[in-house]
Amino acid sequence: MTAKKVLIVGGGFAGINAAKKLGGDSNCAVTIIDRRNHHLFQPLLYQVAMAGLDPSDIASPIRSMLNRYDNISTLLGEVQWVDVDRHVVGTDVGELEYDYLIVACGATHDYFGHDEWEDFAPGLKTIPQATEIRRRVLMAFESAERTSDFEEQQRCMTFVLVGGGPTGVELAGAIAEMARNTLKRDFKTIDASHAKVILVQSGDRILKQFPDPLSEYSKAALETLGVEVRLGNRVTNITADGVQVGDEFIAARTVIWAAGVKANPIGKGLGAETDRAGRVVVGPDLSIADHPEVFVIGDLAAAKDKSGNPLPGLAPVAIQQGHYVGKLIRAEAAAKITVSDRRPFHYLDKGQVATIGRRRAVMQSGRFQLKGTLAWLGWLLIHIVYLNGFRNRFFVFLSWAWSYVTFARGARLIVAKQWKNNATE
Amino acid sequence: MTAKKVLIVGGGFAGINAAKKLGGDSNCAVTIIDRRNHHLFQPLLYQVAMAGLDPSDIASPIRSMLNRYDNISTLLGEVQWVDVDRHVVGTDVGELEYDYLIVACGATHDYFGHDEWEDFAPGLKTIPQATEIRRRVLMAFESAERTSDFEEQQRCMTFVLVGGGPTGVELAGAIAEMARNTLKRDFKTIDASHAKVILVQSGDRILKQFPDPLSEYSKAALETLGVEVRLGNRVTNITADGVQVGDEFIAARTVIWAAGVKANPIGKGLGAETDRAGRVVVGPDLSIADHPEVFVIGDLAAAKDKSGNPLPGLAPVAIQQGHYVGKLIRAEAAAKITVSDRRPFHYLDKGQVATIGRRRAVMQSGRFQLKGTLAWLGWLLIHIVYLNGFRNRFFVFLSWAWSYVTFARGARLIVAKQWKNNATE
Repeated sequence: MTAKKVLIVGGGFAGINAAKKLGGDSNCAVTIIDRRNHHLFQPLLYQVAMAGLDPSDIASPIRSMLNRYDNISTLLGEVQWVDVDRHVVGTDVGELEYDYLIVACGATHDYFGHDEWEDFAPGLKTIPQATEIRRRVLMAFESAERTSDFEEQQRCMTFVLVGGGPTGVELAGAIAEMARNTLKRDFKTIDASHAKVILVQSGDRILKQFPDPLSEYSKAALETLGVEVRLGNRVTNITADGVQVGDEFIAARTVIWAAGVKANPIGKGLGAETDRAGRVVVGPDLSIADHPEVFVIGDLAAAKDKSGNPLPGLAPVAIQQGHYVGKLIRAEAAAKITVSDRRPFHYLDKGQVATIGRRRAVMQSGRFQLKGTLAWLGWLLIHIVYLNGFRNRFFVFLSWAWSYVTFARGARLIVAKQWKNNATE
Repeated sequence: MTAKKVLIVGGGFAGINAAKKLGGDSNCAVTIIDRRNHHLFQPLLYQVAMAGLDPSDIASPIRSMLNRYDNISTLLGEVQWVDVDRHVVGTDVGELEYDYLIVACGATHDYFGHDEWEDFAPGLKTIPQATEIRRRVLMAFESAERTSDFEEQQRCMTFVLVGGGPTGVELAGAIAEMARNTLKRDFKTIDASHAKVILVQSGDRILKQFPDPLSEYSKAALETLGVEVRLGNRVTNITADGVQVGDEFIAARTVIWAAGVKANPIGKGLGAETDRAGRVVVGPDLSIADHPEVFVIGDLAAAKDKSGNPLPGLAPVAIQQGHYVGKLIRAEAAAKITVSDRRPFHYLDKGQVATIGRRRAVMQSGRFQLKGTLAWLGWLLIHIVYLNGFRNRFFVFLSWAWSYVTFARGARLIVAKQWKNNATE
C-alpha cells in the first residue's frame, strides 16, 4: 500500500494531537504546517502576561514534540489557500498535495467590527500579545510613579478588562493580586495597592459556562481582591484615553480585550458552510460536506454534541477531536475501515475549571461543584498534568511553588520591542 | 545634617552595587535612573541568545532588587544631558539635582564607523538583541529545511561570528553544539550537524586577555566542536548576503557582531577628557577632573590600575568600582572623611574565566591556569554564585542541570516581533 499523504494545518491542541495519533507505523506520510515554530499551552498564557511564567515554560517547539516519529515532517510556513477539489494547499513555501487534510488553525479575537480598538486593547492569544500586555501593565505602574499629575496617575492605575469569561476573570484577579502583593513595596510615590481593576461583562453574570452559584462565588472572590465587576455593561468605544461603557467614560491607560472570538479566515476558503463567527460547519465525523477527506477540528470547527448543542472552544474539545481524527485516518490508511464505517465523534465532557487567584477557583464536573482552596489545588494539578513536556511541567511547578511562598513574580521584565543599538522603545 | 542627594545613572553592575552600598541609614537620598526596568547579568546573555536560558533567568527588576532600602528611589527614564556646573541632570521625566553624581551607563557595540552593518550583524548587549539573535539562528535552520536550492541551503547553514573575545567564542561554541546535539534529530531534509560555524578574529589569537596556552586550547576546543577559526582576518564588509573577509566573500545568512565597543555618549556630555572609544578619563578616586562629586564607573570609565594599564570592561571591575564609590560617598556623607582623605581605587584581579562548551573552558588567576572539565565546573560555580537573586540562581542551576543531562535547550522559541492579530512577522 502506498502511504497516505496527510496534511495538518496548525500545531495547536487539535493539530498536535492528531499528529501524535498518526505517528509511527501508520502507513501515513504526515506533514504538519504552522506559521509559528511552537505549540502553545494557551490555558496558561495569561500567566505569561502577568509575569508569573516565562514564554518557554508554556511553549515547546513543534519539531521537537514530534521528532521521534520518522513519518512526520514539520514545516514552518503560512497557508494561503486550499483547493479542496484538486486536493492541494498553497503555502508560502510552495504547493502541498494531500490525501487527507486536517484544518486546525484556530481562532483569534474579534473586535465586533471595531478593529481600530486593537491598538488600545490587545487580546491574548499569542506569546507576543502576552508580553505586550505584560509590558503595558508594568509600564502603567512606572508611568504612575513618574507623573506628578494626579488625574493622569489615576488613569495610569486603572485597568479595564473587557469580557467576563475565564481569560478576563484570570487577568483581573492576577492584576489585582500583583498590585496588592508583589508591587506594593516597589514604589515610593504611588501605592500600587490602590490600583483600580474593572471587569466589564455584557451579560448578567461572569463565567457563564459555569453553574450560577460558581459565577456568584467568582464575582465575590474578585471583589474581595478589590476588582470592580460591572455586569450588564457593554463597551461602546475604546480610545487611547480609556473606555466608554454605556454613558460613562472610564479613563484608563491599560485596556485588555477578552471578549469575542473569530475563526481563522482559512475556514471560509474551504467552501463549506460557516457560522456567524466564521467557524466551519462539520458533520458527525468532523469532515466537511462532500469532502470526507477534509476534516476541521479545534476552535475553527462548529461541531455539535449529541443533543445538537454547539461544542465550546476549549482545549479538551480540541484534544479529543485531534485524537478522534488521527485514529480514524490511521484506521482508513490501514484499510481497516472505509468512509462508510465512520462512527460519529463523541465529546466526553470531563468538566471545567477556572481560577481567580491564590486559593480561589471554581470547578465543575457533571453535577459535582467545587470552589475555594480545593478547586484551586485541582486547577493546579490539572494544568500541571496536561502541560506538555516534562521540563515545562517541572519548571512551571517550581515557579508556582516559588511564587506561592514569596508572592514574587519572577518574570517582571519590561523588554523593549526594538533590538537596535539606539532603539529607545 | 541634611541628606546628600546621590544620583546614579545606570542599573548595571557598577550602578547597582554603588546603590547597595548607599542603602539604609547612610544620610543619603539616592535615586537610580535607568531606561530599562531591569538589571541584567550580562555574562550569561549569550545563553539567552542560544535558547539555553530565559530572559527572566538573568534579569531582575531594579526596583525589587533595591526595594528593601527606604532611602533609594528607582526611576525608569532616560538621561538627556548633564550640567556638571549646575549639578543638574536632564531626563525625559524632568530635571534632577544632585550632590553626588555616579555615571555608570556602560557601552554598546561599535561597528567601526559602519553602522549600516548592524541590520545584518546584530550585537549582544540587551535582551531584545539576545532574542533577535535567537530568532535569526533558529530561523536559519528553518529556512534551510524549507528551501530546495542547494546554494541557499548552504548559506542558511553558515554562521559567522565576528570577534574572538569571550562573547564570540561562547556563541561559536554554543551554535556548533546546538547544531550537533539539540537540533540534529529535529529536521528531515537537512542535517543540522553540517552547519558551518566560522569565527573571524583580526588578531593572531582568540581570547587574547588569557595566557597563550589557554588561547591555543580554546582554539583547538572550538575546532573539535567543528568551528572554523580564522585568525588574522579582518571583516571589510557585511551585507544581507554574507561577509567579506579579506579577498573572500563568505555567503552567510546569519552574522553576529562581537567585536568593538563604544562608550555611551552621555560620557562625552560631562565635558571631561575621553579616550578613543569615548570612555571618560577618571582620576585615582574615579571622579572626573575638577569635579570630585562626579564619578564615572563601569564600562564607561577609562580607569587605570597602579601600573598605569587601562582596566578592562569586565563585570568584576564594575562591581568593585561600584562598591568603592558607594563606600566613599557614604563616608563623606557621614562626615567621616573629606575629599582630601580619599584613597585611590584599587582593582583586585581575582582572575578570569571563559567557556567554549560542555566541559570545555579556560580559567586563569594570577599565575594559576586551568582548562577543560575543571575549568568548566569553575565557570558554572562562579556564574551561579554571582547571579543575583536566589530565584534566578536556583532556576538557572536547574536549567543547566537539565540541559546537561538531556542536551535539550528549553527556550527554543521563535517569537514574532509584532503582537497584532494579523501580524505575519
